[in-house]
Amino acid sequence: MHRRYVKVLEDVLDANSTIAAANREDFERASVKVVNLMSAPGAGKTSLLERVLARLDGVRVGVLEGDVQTALDADRIASLHVPVVQINTEPRFGGECHLDANMVRSAIPALPLDEIDLLVIENVGNLVCPAEFRLGEHHRVMVASVAEGEDKPLKYPLMFRACELVLVNKIDLLPHLDFDLERFLGNLDAVHPGVDRLLVSAKTGEGLEAWRDWLVAAAVREASRVA
Amino acid sequence: MHRRYVKVLEDVLDANSTIAAANREDFERASVKVVNLMSAPGAGKTSLLERVLARLDGVRVGVLEGDVQTALDADRIASLHVPVVQINTEPRFGGECHLDANMVRSAIPALPLDEIDLLVIENVGNLVCPAEFRLGEHHRVMVASVAEGEDKPLKYPLMFRACELVLVNKIDLLPHLDFDLERFLGNLDAVHPGVDRLLVSAKTGEGLEAWRDWLVAAAVREASRVA
Repeated sequence: MHRRYVKVLEDVLDANSTIAAANREDFERASVKVVNLMSAPGAGKTSLLERVLARLDGVRVGVLEGDVQTALDADRIASLHVPVVQINTEPRFGGECHLDANMVRSAIPALPLDEIDLLVIENVGNLVCPAEFRLGEHHRVMVASVAEGEDKPLKYPLMFRACELVLVNKIDLLPHLDFDLERFLGNLDAVHPGVDRLLVSAKTGEGLEAWRDWLVAAAVREASRVA
Repeated sequence: MHRRYVKVLEDVLDANSTIAAANREDFERASVKVVNLMSAPGAGKTSLLERVLARLDGVRVGVLEGDVQTALDADRIASLHVPVVQINTEPRFGGECHLDANMVRSAIPALPLDEIDLLVIENVGNLVCPAEFRLGEHHRVMVASVAEGEDKPLKYPLMFRACELVLVNKIDLLPHLDFDLERFLGNLDAVHPGVDRLLVSAKTGEGLEAWRDWLVAAAVREASRVA
């Protein structure tokens, strides 16, 4: 069973890369830069978008929401009057645990690419498989909540290595947690030395100006080597 | 690509069920009851085990640790002088995002089944795929951290439906979060009406007696219908 499974998954990843390249071409033809935003469930991806999307200094942004089920996050983003398209992975195989390039491809016709400069793709909450599946993005960002503990970079190194920016979220909770920030950042540097990181709190607003500035710059920045 | 992928995954799930049944037979032959413990990354599975494993009232317990990488959790459990076996999914396909029955099967020879009454399998941190892959367990428990937000039962319904007990962890953080516990429990009942739930804090110890009592009872309880 196992060998066949691995072979098919390798084929799937190859096909995914081909489709991701086609997506990238479509995005570049429309001069749209794309950010793939990933995290564990409940780390705060949607909240961190909600807090900055309306203040992007003239950068026109759209959002592609990936979830196993529900349009809860898309509804939150739409209330900001930002164009948003929802992908639910549920109608597929029992709910895929990640977005893949083909799902994004199927959503492209619904995206107003000519009217935006920046597309943020909010991936399914998962620290494993989303790191494997390129979507055609230029930039990859992950959110790590301090409530998840210091050991996560060591336990999910592929995800932490696959990103060019790590948003360390919920820092307002630090006084209430047994979380050693220095140890977490040491673990982060152990798996991805020197990766950019921002300490943020969607609740208090701390660090959100820097996150907004990063997104504004991403709209014109060349694709990252890790994307 | 997609249809072939789905077909192969269906085959994989079929094969998984067959192997899970063989695992279950091995466990029953040794009179060992098995709990599959699941959650998102950083919800507190290991901490909730650490706090009760040494106080199980004569129930002899062993632990099978599943992680993409590292033996960090196994080391924490081993320090309690509890027999523990580590499975790392990393040598397989880029790090599987869940345990499957075959991984558990490969670990059975290393488990002292004749010397334990209860085996706790700590799954890979993920709210999607672990719910799909039966391991041969009798009971399925999940941990939901209040730091993850109220919407998680709606967004990951399969996981919340697949369990007979939901441990609502980190309730010590409630005063510091915008988390509406009643709304969370309403969402939980919407996807899995009346499922057992315990409000716990691995940090303050609140609710841990009930969690310990549940584990002690699980060592003699018949398999759940949801397992």
